[in-house]
Amino acid sequence: MRLLVVNVNTTASVTESIAASARSVAAADTEIIGLTPAIGAESVEGNFESYLAAVAVMNAVVTYEGPFDAVIQAGFGEHGREGLQELLDVPVVDITEAAGHVASLIGHRYSVVTSLDRTVPLIEGRLAQAGLAARCASVRSSGLSVLQLEEDPATAVKAIVREAELAVRDDHAEVICLGCGGMAGLDDAVRSATGVPVVDGVTAAVKLAESLVGLGLSTSKIRTYAPPRRKRVTGWPLPS
Amino acid sequence: MRLLVVNVNTTASVTESIAASARSVAAADTEIIGLTPAIGAESVEGNFESYLAAVAVMNAVVTYEGPFDAVIQAGFGEHGREGLQELLDVPVVDITEAAGHVASLIGHRYSVVTSLDRTVPLIEGRLAQAGLAARCASVRSSGLSVLQLEEDPATAVKAIVREAELAVRDDHAEVICLGCGGMAGLDDAVRSATGVPVVDGVTAAVKLAESLVGLGLSTSKIRTYAPPRRKRVTGWPLPS
Amino acid sequence: MRLLVVNVNTTASVTESIAASARSVAAADTEIIGLTPAIGAESVEGNFESYLAAVAVMNAVVTYEGPFDAVIQAGFGEHGREGLQELLDVPVVDITEAAGHVASLIGHRYSVVTSLDRTVPLIEGRLAQAGLAARCASVRSSGLSVLQLEEDPATAVKAIVREAELAVRDDHAEVICLGCGGMAGLDDAVRSATGVPVVDGVTAAVKLAESLVGLGLSTSKIRTYAPPRRKRVTGWPLPS
Amino acid sequence: MRLLVVNVNTTASVTESIAASARSVAAADTEIIGLTPAIGAESVEGNFESYLAAVAVMNAVVTYEGPFDAVIQAGFGEHGREGLQELLDVPVVDITEAAGHVASLIGHRYSVVTSLDRTVPLIEGRLAQAGLAARCASVRSSGLSVLQLEEDPATAVKAIVREAELAVRDDHAEVICLGCGGMAGLDDAVRSATGVPVVDGVTAAVKLAESLVGLGLSTSKIRTYAPPRRKRVTGWPLPS
Amino acid sequence: MRLLVVNVNTTASVTESIAASARSVAAADTEIIGLTPAIGAESVEGNFESYLAAVAVMNAVVTYEGPFDAVIQAGFGEHGREGLQELLDVPVVDITEAAGHVASLIGHRYSVVTSLDRTVPLIEGRLAQAGLAARCASVRSSGLSVLQLEEDPATAVKAIVREAELAVRDDHAEVICLGCGGMAGLDDAVRSATGVPVVDGVTAAVKLAESLVGLGLSTSKIRTYAPPRRKRVTGWPLPS
Amino acid sequence: MRLLVVNVNTTASVTESIAASARSVAAADTEIIGLTPAIGAESVEGNFESYLAAVAVMNAVVTYEGPFDAVIQAGFGEHGREGLQELLDVPVVDITEAAGHVASLIGHRYSVVTSLDRTVPLIEGRLAQAGLAARCASVRSSGLSVLQLEEDPATAVKAIVREAELAVRDDHAEVICLGCGGMAGLDDAVRSATGVPVVDGVTAAVKLAESLVGLGLSTSKIRTYAPPRRKRVTGWPLPS
Repeated sequence: MRLLVVNVNTTASVTESIAASARSVAAADTEIIGLTPAIGAESVEGNFESYLAAVAVMNAVVTYEGPFDAVIQAGFGEHGREGLQELLDVPVVDITEAAGHVASLIGHRYSVVTSLDRTVPLIEGRLAQAGLAARCASVRSSGLSVLQLEEDPATAVKAIVREAELAVRDDHAEVICLGCGGMAGLDDAVRSATGVPVVDGVTAAVKLAESLVGLGLSTSKIRTYAPPRRKRVTGWPLPS
Repeated sequence: MRLLVVNVNTTASVTESIAASARSVAAADTEIIGLTPAIGAESVEGNFESYLAAVAVMNAVVTYEGPFDAVIQAGFGEHGREGLQELLDVPVVDITEAAGHVASLIGHRYSVVTSLDRTVPLIEGRLAQAGLAARCASVRSSGLSVLQLEEDPATAVKAIVREAELAVRDDHAEVICLGCGGMAGLDDAVRSATGVPVVDGVTAAVKLAESLVGLGLSTSKIRTYAPPRRKRVTGWPLPS
Repeated sequence: MRLLVVNVNTTASVTESIAASARSVAAADTEIIGLTPAIGAESVEGNFESYLAAVAVMNAVVTYEGPFDAVIQAGFGEHGREGLQELLDVPVVDITEAAGHVASLIGHRYSVVTSLDRTVPLIEGRLAQAGLAARCASVRSSGLSVLQLEEDPATAVKAIVREAELAVRDDHAEVICLGCGGMAGLDDAVRSATGVPVVDGVTAAVKLAESLVGLGLSTSKIRTYAPPRRKRVTGWPLPS
Repeated sequence: MRLLVVNVNTTASVTESIAASARSVAAADTEIIGLTPAIGAESVEGNFESYLAAVAVMNAVVTYEGPFDAVIQAGFGEHGREGLQELLDVPVVDITEAAGHVASLIGHRYSVVTSLDRTVPLIEGRLAQAGLAARCASVRSSGLSVLQLEEDPATAVKAIVREAELAVRDDHAEVICLGCGGMAGLDDAVRSATGVPVVDGVTAAVKLAESLVGLGLSTSKIRTYAPPRRKRVTGWPLPS
Repeated sequence: MRLLVVNVNTTASVTESIAASARSVAAADTEIIGLTPAIGAESVEGNFESYLAAVAVMNAVVTYEGPFDAVIQAGFGEHGREGLQELLDVPVVDITEAAGHVASLIGHRYSVVTSLDRTVPLIEGRLAQAGLAARCASVRSSGLSVLQLEEDPATAVKAIVREAELAVRDDHAEVICLGCGGMAGLDDAVRSATGVPVVDGVTAAVKLAESLVGLGLSTSKIRTYAPPRRKRVTGWPLPS
Repeated sequence: MRLLVVNVNTTASVTESIAASARSVAAADTEIIGLTPAIGAESVEGNFESYLAAVAVMNAVVTYEGPFDAVIQAGFGEHGREGLQELLDVPVVDITEAAGHVASLIGHRYSVVTSLDRTVPLIEGRLAQAGLAARCASVRSSGLSVLQLEEDPATAVKAIVREAELAVRDDHAEVICLGCGGMAGLDDAVRSATGVPVVDGVTAAVKLAESLVGLGLSTSKIRTYAPPRRKRVTGWPLPS
């Protein structure tokens, strides 16, 4: 099976680390194809960038020429998954939702630890939209930007662990979700510091995508995610 | 005061009718400037088109060169308002939310009558995201596309009135919101058929935008709608 | 247009300051008429006083002899708006709800800072009843009574600013609503201390009332707010 | 023990039938004292009348000169209970809430069948305010006014039974609450027609009031229901 | 009337103290019969033990040979009440729910103080299932096990009072519910320390059970709590 | 990997069909072990039977002597999953929750079609407890008992398809979940009749259990699902 794992920002090194993380849990016969959008921000940390990413990801997927069996949108808390579901017949899994579903299976309540404070409402909004708010104890911010996570992993780990500990102690979280695509690989550190399971959205999404393909299931086309009606769409796909 | 009223689709005649509707209630010293996005769908009826509209509207506004005091996003149930709020210092009013706020002031519960069934979840989602779900009795679909509303107003009125009557009788709506930018001008017909006040999002948004400007208030910049951080954004603004 | 701005307590100086605040934002052709109830408490800070105010305000309005185009009930968190809506054909705007609606337009979440702690549940209840709870981050009390706000503005400002700062920092409020009719005029101080927009219910209500009149909209009479049925009502209006 | 059972309307015959109903379940040593407000509407069916009733009931209780151990407010869905709780040290039980609590103990979900449609939102609002909405399947209207219930019991029973049957069949109610003080005595007819338990708020309130007295419990005075602060209150108690 | 008060654990001394507490408020003609399950844990503090208790309590009741008029399940936050309601024609009252209902009658919001932290989600879940979450301010843990409460009452009182004080101060609770069958008798200490009413589920349940019997009401048998269908059930009742 | 798939009733043929269904989607290296409880009802259709099943399943698992990597509880809407999570270190997946999670990934809203009407509240309760209510459009009953499904598959398919069609048309479901372990194998019929994806909880649970094992994740032991404390437990495991 071929899984398209699409980054939401334009930084190719992030795409590579996401793809590597995806490969670390993929089944033997699952091929992971990392995709970087041609347009958008080098890191996505707010509504403007997130909406731009939504369109950029759709653009990257519809202009991708190879075959694939499912798509993973690898931005935590970003817009766009519903659009992909309209455009595609194969399953689409968003890493935010994947993390929430998997966390719900292994703990009574979960918290998300993300990068900047300004992304917290976005993540809360996306979890609510996905029907995953009821078991979410909190979304907490480490105060570090996405690129700082890349540049200074040691400081990042410290800040993330600190918020994870507070989530467990004060918000009664029993599972921690890493709330940023760029946090892939930090799960061991957070788990050993807090003593609770840590869910990474990218790896969770790989297993859920494999599950859907294995079950022969894909997006319902009856109403919300029906294919777009035939009509004039100007400037689409976006010029490359 | 100058209000930028931005259509979400690329059909200039719709922009004109929206602008005319806006002008019909604008204060004497309010200038209405209609704006049509350069990219996007000729009518917006689903998630792909709505996300594309979100970016197209932001693009149209940031590339608009004249001065303005507030922006109205004139698509019912569409994405994107939060991005505009990040990009601008002036107030931004979405017509979906304007309709919901005004309807809440004049009735215990309100219903929305929109175009195609597939847009119902989008509208419900946007109302929930705006904190306007508690007083919403229902979102009902007339079964007609946005362009059919344009082409055959007589049939459209009939279908919309039918759903409005059901909303009043079965869902206990006390106010009807016209759930499509293209329905501007149908309020009299729906009001006389149902006996309840009818709210048009475009005119409601004009008065709310004037109100915000009159109160000297604009978007809070402290967290969710802070300006995007300085960073590399590829392909933005979109090539025209 | 003539707006009747009705105080909820019997203190004429409060009515005057409310009316002055209303006039500061009213359109050139809007006349503000302040009205003080003949019965009730000198300040309203609890359920008994609030219910009495509800009836006293209705009594003041139905015995007022001049013409008016809309009514503003100028008590934060008080009962009674629904009764006025039954009795009148013109729009009725409550300042609590006006503040909540306007705050929702300019920030993701808002907090209210009010006077005594005992009024917090009343305000929370009224916001919930109005469908405005979803975006309300918190209702906080400054610990000062309504009359202390009048008597010692310097101390009042300090206490209110303190709670506003905590609302922004701990509750993630992005907008502050002044939760007491007597706080009119404190918005500058709170805004400069917190860096977030401050909404005063009285001025917000003036613009929303003007908006409704401008849109030709008034209370739906189909169900909840239908006029009272003809029947024997003893002791009404209240003897003066 | 002496229970003050206060009618919300000014019709003495209704007070008598309520008191008779209360006596039918009262303990041997419980004395029921019926009280009719001196002001207000002959029947309460909307917000204006309900707010007036709230004040009239408080007025009747504070001017009642004899001793009593608890107060029952005997109007279904009416305002005012919170005010009484501030004014009194003894327990206060509202019949709406009594019905909801008792119904919750004997069925998974309950419905209320009330008089006119316009009172439905009032009852829904009061149940929500009391924290009793989660188990409420529906509030249904028989379409008959309070006084029609008095005048034509046969027709009333038929209309009420009809709605009760629909509540059981369509809304999955397992218990029916009689949603109007004037329905006391109709429980047998509704129970035999529907096969589900029927709760009358007046009798439920008598047993809950006796329970609170028996447990030595009364209203918490720490915050929401603290006694009104000492202040000037004009025109109170209302002139008789 | 005869009330069966069933302990959820196998410790006979706990049953005795529960029964004594029940007797302290029972009416003169109410006989309290304490029942200890033959199987299960010596104290119930988690899901495994709670599910086992649910079955053990049902087993104890169906194998009890004497007559009874109502059953009280005397475990705070435990599973099983719904099963008893299916098996019996007489009313069933769970002490968790009894406490929540009574607390709601005497304060705006209530908190529960329980034993170990791990039981908090169980209690929250049961309150939500019973429709009692809306008025619940918090469920707090004293950190002491059920048996520690028995062994060292002085330390227990101190820890419970501490959490009750925090519930009143930080969570705005106006009533405290003792969240463990073994806390019967601590109400005076908590009340004098906090100044708020204290509700003990066992005594509350006795009065509610007496109320239901007095009203001639019992569990609705129409749907959720219909008797089990006739079928083969292996190993039931459990071998003694 | 070895997955223990535990039936909730005592009917061995149901266990076999569940296990066959599980095997139809299991990975090549996944071994499915069907387990039938020694005690309990021949079919589980209500609270008494469901609580008994909860304990019977735990009993079957703790007395099973072979090794296993995860457990699937194969009863739709039944109690007990939380107890298993306390007793075991390996992941536990309930088929109700598995269906809800998978359905949420492929449609905006899903409905469940189950057997008897009396089980609807149980399923609703379990979905709410699992945080899966927000995306659930409805739980509908086919009116057939579990054993009727076994005995007369043709009639069963017809009744289930009928409710699935109503769920899609009236409740706006976009995905149907088969709400009974005994419905395994009916998915093709329902899918072809309704045109929407059909999720079977058993097969969904197999893929989710494989996913958790593949991710190296299991139940958090920090609070709600910590192992039971060491204490005297009488009569456990249940005598065989």
